[in-house]
Amino acid sequence: MAEEAAVRVQAEAVRRLKQDQADPDEIAKEVAKLLEMKAQLGGDEGKHKFVLKTPKGTRDYGPKQMAIRERVFNTIISCFKRHGAEVIDTPVFELKETLTGKYGEDSKLIYDLKDQGGELLSLRYDLTVPFARYLAMNKITNIKRYHIAKVYRRDNPAMTRGRYREFYQCDFDIAGQFDPMIPDAECLKIVHEILSDLQLGDFLIKVNDRRILDGMFAVCGVPDSKFRTICSSVDKLDKMPWEEVRSEMVGEKGLSPEAADRIGEYVQLHGGLDLIERLLQDPRLSQNKLAKEGLGDMKLLFEYLALFGITGKISFDLSLARGLDYYTGVIFEAVLLQQENDHVEEPVSVGSVAGGGRYDGLVGMFDPKGRKVPCVGVSIGIERIFSILEQRVEASEEKIRTTETQVLVASAQKKLLEERLKLIAELWDAGIKAEVLYKKNPKLLNQLQYCEDTGIPLVAIVGEQELKDGVVKLRVVATREEVNVRRESLVEEIRMRTSRP
Amino acid sequence: MAEEAAVRVQAEAVRRLKQDQADPDEIAKEVAKLLEMKAQLGGDEGKHKFVLKTPKGTRDYGPKQMAIRERVFNTIISCFKRHGAEVIDTPVFELKETLTGKYGEDSKLIYDLKDQGGELLSLRYDLTVPFARYLAMNKITNIKRYHIAKVYRRDNPAMTRGRYREFYQCDFDIAGQFDPMIPDAECLKIVHEILSDLQLGDFLIKVNDRRILDGMFAVCGVPDSKFRTICSSVDKLDKMPWEEVRSEMVGEKGLSPEAADRIGEYVQLHGGLDLIERLLQDPRLSQNKLAKEGLGDMKLLFEYLALFGITGKISFDLSLARGLDYYTGVIFEAVLLQQENDHVEEPVSVGSVAGGGRYDGLVGMFDPKGRKVPCVGVSIGIERIFSILEQRVEASEEKIRTTETQVLVASAQKKLLEERLKLIAELWDAGIKAEVLYKKNPKLLNQLQYCEDTGIPLVAIVGEQELKDGVVKLRVVATREEVNVRRESLVEEIRMRTSRP
Repeated sequence: MAEEAAVRVQAEAVRRLKQDQADPDEIAKEVAKLLEMKAQLGGDEGKHKFVLKTPKGTRDYGPKQMAIRERVFNTIISCFKRHGAEVIDTPVFELKETLTGKYGEDSKLIYDLKDQGGELLSLRYDLTVPFARYLAMNKITNIKRYHIAKVYRRDNPAMTRGRYREFYQCDFDIAGQFDPMIPDAECLKIVHEILSDLQLGDFLIKVNDRRILDGMFAVCGVPDSKFRTICSSVDKLDKMPWEEVRSEMVGEKGLSPEAADRIGEYVQLHGGLDLIERLLQDPRLSQNKLAKEGLGDMKLLFEYLALFGITGKISFDLSLARGLDYYTGVIFEAVLLQQENDHVEEPVSVGSVAGGGRYDGLVGMFDPKGRKVPCVGVSIGIERIFSILEQRVEASEEKIRTTETQVLVASAQKKLLEERLKLIAELWDAGIKAEVLYKKNPKLLNQLQYCEDTGIPLVAIVGEQELKDGVVKLRVVATREEVNVRRESLVEEIRMRTSRP
Repeated sequence: MAEEAAVRVQAEAVRRLKQDQADPDEIAKEVAKLLEMKAQLGGDEGKHKFVLKTPKGTRDYGPKQMAIRERVFNTIISCFKRHGAEVIDTPVFELKETLTGKYGEDSKLIYDLKDQGGELLSLRYDLTVPFARYLAMNKITNIKRYHIAKVYRRDNPAMTRGRYREFYQCDFDIAGQFDPMIPDAECLKIVHEILSDLQLGDFLIKVNDRRILDGMFAVCGVPDSKFRTICSSVDKLDKMPWEEVRSEMVGEKGLSPEAADRIGEYVQLHGGLDLIERLLQDPRLSQNKLAKEGLGDMKLLFEYLALFGITGKISFDLSLARGLDYYTGVIFEAVLLQQENDHVEEPVSVGSVAGGGRYDGLVGMFDPKGRKVPCVGVSIGIERIFSILEQRVEASEEKIRTTETQVLVASAQKKLLEERLKLIAELWDAGIKAEVLYKKNPKLLNQLQYCEDTGIPLVAIVGEQELKDGVVKLRVVATREEVNVRRESLVEEIRMRTSRP
C-alpha cells in the first residue's frame, strides 16, 4: 500500500511540474513527502521492506559477549554448586492464570501470547513463581535448587545500564521447614561469595524484614489499608531524598504529617547488631508483635552472619522495602559502591546487582489444600554485571579468545588438502581442538594470520618432505619456533604444550 | 461456572433421593457426574480453581533430568568446541516479519505474541532463521558458530517420543564462501562424532542433495510447479511404503503414472561412491545440469568423508527429501538403528536424531542488497536423545547424583550449630562443596542418612572433644571409616579424598 501511494505522489509531482502549476515551496513539500515514503519502503527497490533488528529491549550476544557471559555464569554456578544446590528448568511460558495475582501493579508488564486456540499463555516474569508452581505441582516440600534462565518484562528498556525486556535471572532458593534464619543466612553468604568472586569492586548488602516494616507502619499510625502504598513510597528512598518521599506520602497518599514524620525517624536508620538491640528496646516498636518477631530474627541472622565472617558488608537498613508482593520475612538487596573520587566521604551506590528474601506464602497459593512451603531465595542481577564487565573489557583492550582451538592444521605447499583432512580427523578423534582453513590451496601466510587473529597457539604443518619422513612440523605461533614431531607423538606433544600450568 | 453447575447437579440428586424418584442406576450416574465435576474443581472448597500444570507440550526438568541433560550438552558442546566453533545467542522472540515466508506450510505452527502495543513478535521456530538474521544485520560473511537454545512449535506433541512444543535445538553452522564440500564434510563428521560419543547404539547418516532431487524430478517429467509438493511426498518414504506414496502422487497430486514410476526407480536407490558413479553415467540424469552438479559435489563429499574415515555409516539415499524450504544443496539426516532381534536382517530406524544441510540463499533474504552468504549446518535433535537416555537410566536403576557436594558438616552432640556454621564457612571459602542440615540440633543418624540419600561421600564431624583437640573427625560414608584430621589440614584432606582418579 505504501508503495502504491508513493507512486501516486510521484506521478502527481511530475504532472504538476510538467504543467508548471506548482510553486517551489509546494515542490519541496512533495519531494519531502516522497522521500519519507521511500524511507519507509527501505531505501532501495522495495524488495526488502522489513526492518533488520531484534525486538525492542532485546539484543543478540555475539561471541565476545558470550565469552564474558560464560565466565560470569561459571563463577555463579560454581558458587551454587558449592552450596549443594540441584538445578531445575521450567518452560519459558506458563498458563496465564499461573502468573495472575502474583506481581501486584507490575502485572501490566507481563508478555501474553496470542490466543491461537488452546490454552492462554504468558511468558514468565521471574523464576520464583514458576518455582513455586513446580513445588506445588510435584508436592515437593524440601529442595535447594538453582535456576538460570531468561525472564520477560515489557518495561522501558535502558540497555546501556543493563535493563532489558529479555534478561537472565540466576536464582538460588531454599524451600522447606527449617530452624529459623539458617537458610536465610546462607543466601546472604552466597551473595557475598559471588560478588567477591566476580571482583566487581566494593559492595554492600542491605537487609530488612517485611515484619519490621509492617510493625513500624503500625506503630507510626499508618492505617492498615495504606501499608502497601506507603511501603512503595519507602522503596523510593534509594532514588529520592526523604523530603520528596514524605511529601508523596502526605500529599498524594493522604498520610497524616505526624505519621510521616514518625516513619521518617525510622527509615533513616541503618547499622548492625547495635541498631537491632536499640530497636528491640524502642518503646513503640517493642510493643508491636510483628516488629518484635522480625527484630528477634534479625538479631539471630546477624549472629549467623558473624559466624560466616561477613557482617562487614551487611547493613540492617530500615529504608529497604522491595516491591514484590510475595515477601513475608527477611528481604535484602546488594548494591555496588563506587568511590567517585578519594575526596568523597560517602560511597555512591551504582545500582542493585542482587536481591531476594523470604516468601513463605507463595507455594500455598498454588497448593489445592493451601499447604505452605516456606522459601527463601536470592536472585543475581546478571545483566547489570555483564554491562559492567563488558565496559571494563572494552576499556582495558584485553583480547578475549572466543574459541578454544589448540592447533591449526596447515600446509606450506599446494595439493595437500587431502593430507590436511586426514591429519585433522586423527586429531579430532584424539580429542584435540583443531581447525583447518576451508580452501584447497591456502597460502601459509594466510594460515598463520588466521592463528594470530583468533589466538590459536600452535600450527601443525604438513608438507611433502614431512610426509616422507613420517613427521609433522609443529610451529609455536607466539615464538615462531618450529620443531619436527613424529606423527605418532603429535597428539601428546600438542596436549603437553597447551595444558594449562 | 463449573462450580454452579456442580451445586445444581448435587441439589437435584438430593431432591430426587428425598422424593425417592430415582432408581439406583440413575443415582450412580448422578454421583459419577458429580464426582467428575468435583475433580474439575480441584477437589476442595473450590478455593484454588486453576489447573496446576505446565502448558500443553511442555515440561519441567527436575534435578535428575537436568543431570542427564547436562551430560548430553557437555558431550555436544565439547564436540562443537573441538571443531573451533564460537557461540552466540539471540532473543527467544523475533519480529514477526523476520520469520514470515521462511517455513512454507509450517508457518502455521509459529507462536505469535499478543499485540500489546508496539512491535508484532513471534517465538523463534528454529535457530537457523535467527542466525541468518544475525549475519545480515551485523554484515558477517564468515563465521563458524554453535547455538544451543529452545525453539517453539505449536505442533501435536508426542512427549513420550520426545516431541514437544518447547524443545532444545543444538545447532552448528559454517557460514562463508569456501571451496566446495569441505565445510559440508565437517558437518557430517560432527554428527558422526556426537552420535558415537553419546553411545546411543548404531546409527546411519543419510545424505542427498536438493539439486539431485530437483534434477531427478525434471528428468522424470514432473512439471516445475509440482516439484515442491512431489518432494514432500518423497519425504514420507521413511514412514510409508512406496506404493502408498505413489498413489498420493498420482491420485492426490495429479502426477502422471509414468512420471511416478520413473521417480520410483530412483528413490529406492541408496548406496555409496559406486552408486554416485553409476548415476553420473545415468543416460537421463547426466543430461540434467542441476543433477550433474549435485552428483559431482556428492562424489567430492564422499572422498572427503573417506579421508575422515566415516563412510561406513553414511548412505547416499535418493529418498531423503527434508521439508524445509530454505535448503539449496546437500541435505542429511541421522537415524538411530535398532536391532529388533538377531534374526532381523534389516535394522529398523527408530527416528531422526540429527539433520541439516546447505542453505545458500537464506542470509540474502535478509540483506538489503540481497548479498548472499553460503551456509551449511547441522542441528542435533536433543529431545529424542534425552528421552532415550532417560528411559535407559530408569531401566538400569543407575543412581544419578544431582549435586556435587563433597562433605556434610555435622555434629554428634547438641548445641554445636555455631561450630558447624563456622567450619562450613571455612570450607566454602576454600572452595570445598559443603552442606549442613538447617537444624539447631540434628541427630547424627539423620545427618548420615542425608549423605546416603544424596551421595555425599564424606562427613566432617565436630564435637566438644574434637574442638578441644583442634581436630575434625572425617568419616567416609561408604566404608564408615573415621579419622581425626587436624583442622588446618582438613581442606587438603577433603580435596585429596574427593579428587577424581
